[in-house]
Amino acid sequence: MFAATPTPRPALARRAGYGAAVRLDLVPSLDPAAYSYSHEVRVRFSETDAMGIVHHSRYLPYLEEARVEYLRAIDHPYDALRAEGVDIAVLEAAVQYRQPLRFDEVVRVHLVLGAATRTTFQIAYLLTVGQQVRATAVTVHGCVTAAGRPVRLPEWLARFTE
Amino acid sequence: MFAATPTPRPALARRAGYGAAVRLDLVPSLDPAAYSYSHEVRVRFSETDAMGIVHHSRYLPYLEEARVEYLRAIDHPYDALRAEGVDIAVLEAAVQYRQPLRFDEVVRVHLVLGAATRTTFQIAYLLTVGQQVRATAVTVHGCVTAAGRPVRLPEWLARFTE
Amino acid sequence: MFAATPTPRPALARRAGYGAAVRLDLVPSLDPAAYSYSHEVRVRFSETDAMGIVHHSRYLPYLEEARVEYLRAIDHPYDALRAEGVDIAVLEAAVQYRQPLRFDEVVRVHLVLGAATRTTFQIAYLLTVGQQVRATAVTVHGCVTAAGRPVRLPEWLARFTE
Amino acid sequence: MFAATPTPRPALARRAGYGAAVRLDLVPSLDPAAYSYSHEVRVRFSETDAMGIVHHSRYLPYLEEARVEYLRAIDHPYDALRAEGVDIAVLEAAVQYRQPLRFDEVVRVHLVLGAATRTTFQIAYLLTVGQQVRATAVTVHGCVTAAGRPVRLPEWLARFTE
Repeated sequence: MFAATPTPRPALARRAGYGAAVRLDLVPSLDPAAYSYSHEVRVRFSETDAMGIVHHSRYLPYLEEARVEYLRAIDHPYDALRAEGVDIAVLEAAVQYRQPLRFDEVVRVHLVLGAATRTTFQIAYLLTVGQQVRATAVTVHGCVTAAGRPVRLPEWLARFTE
Repeated sequence: MFAATPTPRPALARRAGYGAAVRLDLVPSLDPAAYSYSHEVRVRFSETDAMGIVHHSRYLPYLEEARVEYLRAIDHPYDALRAEGVDIAVLEAAVQYRQPLRFDEVVRVHLVLGAATRTTFQIAYLLTVGQQVRATAVTVHGCVTAAGRPVRLPEWLARFTE
Repeated sequence: MFAATPTPRPALARRAGYGAAVRLDLVPSLDPAAYSYSHEVRVRFSETDAMGIVHHSRYLPYLEEARVEYLRAIDHPYDALRAEGVDIAVLEAAVQYRQPLRFDEVVRVHLVLGAATRTTFQIAYLLTVGQQVRATAVTVHGCVTAAGRPVRLPEWLARFTE
Repeated sequence: MFAATPTPRPALARRAGYGAAVRLDLVPSLDPAAYSYSHEVRVRFSETDAMGIVHHSRYLPYLEEARVEYLRAIDHPYDALRAEGVDIAVLEAAVQYRQPLRFDEVVRVHLVLGAATRTTFQIAYLLTVGQQVRATAVTVHGCVTAAGRPVRLPEWLARFTE
């Protein structure tokens, strides 16, 4: 049900501490039906820039907010995760800005998990306003201890990436 | 002198309005000597998050600040560019977070231009603190009119991507 | 119904272009019943800092989001206002941080308008989480043209500050 | 040498945990000569908003950066302070926006300490671009333990507020 459709790609980069297994494998679909969860965010004025559109750095907090709401929706709220001593670090993030977002627009952030390894997983995103595609994105995550050492994905999380 | 070393890669995505030519071609080198310009940024407390490190969204403004200083350094300040009616839009951005950045650290942002097409170009980045690599990144840019329509790269800009 | 209870205070400062009439007159009440509107915001992880709490600069976008929702609620959405050629500038902002806000908390931002002059008005805010007071704030606003010249408050706006 | 010129004012608010002693006492002078330290910040594009000017929330990180540089300049870097188990919390912040700041402008942030009590102190700020006054501000700070409990100001800090 949460299956993404990873298209094999050569590694974007080898990562010290994470080895050759980490790479941006997911290719985000433009079809909302390919995603397992979605969350709405309304653009704040403080997120716009002097070009009159949402600054490109401001998309990443939207993705993060959607991740947090997703974890709550699947009954594994982020706070509970941190209480277990596990943090979810962001190892990589890539965004494609297709059409700008503007002040006061309501953005639907679709997401789906995939491409899990023993210690990492990926999330693909599609951002839409009404029927229009505005952006796609992929983030790569690793589970780490409070001290920052990579640890195995919790079993429930591994399951959601299948 | 400003030549990057694009390693051919399959397209991350085809982009409406920019066609098949746009893709994250550049693979950032881990060697500072591969870059043509660098700029220092000191981490602000307001850029950290509750994990005690710089929030991953806050790297993008560092890259942008380095781009602006680069344009000034090559005598094509961004303001002059905008006065000519040309804006440089961000079409894509990808960051790899290798080691966290912390409050008050001085980050050197190295950059090099490359992979130009008729209307787009790319920049590869390396972020270091002292001798340590902290992150790499690639951004893809397109020149657009104030109304957002893609236009040819100015000749001088095309030259810097060779 | 929208009446605030301005407690006269000496001017915080005389303002070039706005003269002696501008000052932080409102003293925010700690009683939610003293406010005419409220709006909920959930704290994002990206808004926290290395002290583990919401960074003090991040309260201002919460206030702004509440203002925007308030204008929508009273049928004068900000976009319509801007279409009339009127912008609402922030002339002054003051926040008192009483108890920290933390990641994932749901903050209720209460607001009430008051202290209008011919070209300015003020808003008092109370930020609560459950029954707890976390912060109070006041902002002073001026209506300006797109070119930044002060203009009379629209009549409907003046009415809401009575 | 670091003496500010606090103009007595009625308390903006009584603060739970800090008592009646806390209030915005300082009235920032418009004369740069009244300040004991200054630090330059260049406006980033990411700090502008769709009105084409720096978003009002973005001034607070400028003030914070200036505070951090000031502590370094007087040989009491913030890191050393935190290593002693003392954090400097922001209890209150007030900004007056007199003339907008724009992209790429170099802002000089002047500051001076004053109005110390046993556990709190205040800082007045003047923001200038060239000879022009753009904003003034006051922040109120309290020294707290890592657990957030108010503690006496370190002796050296009390001295700098005289």
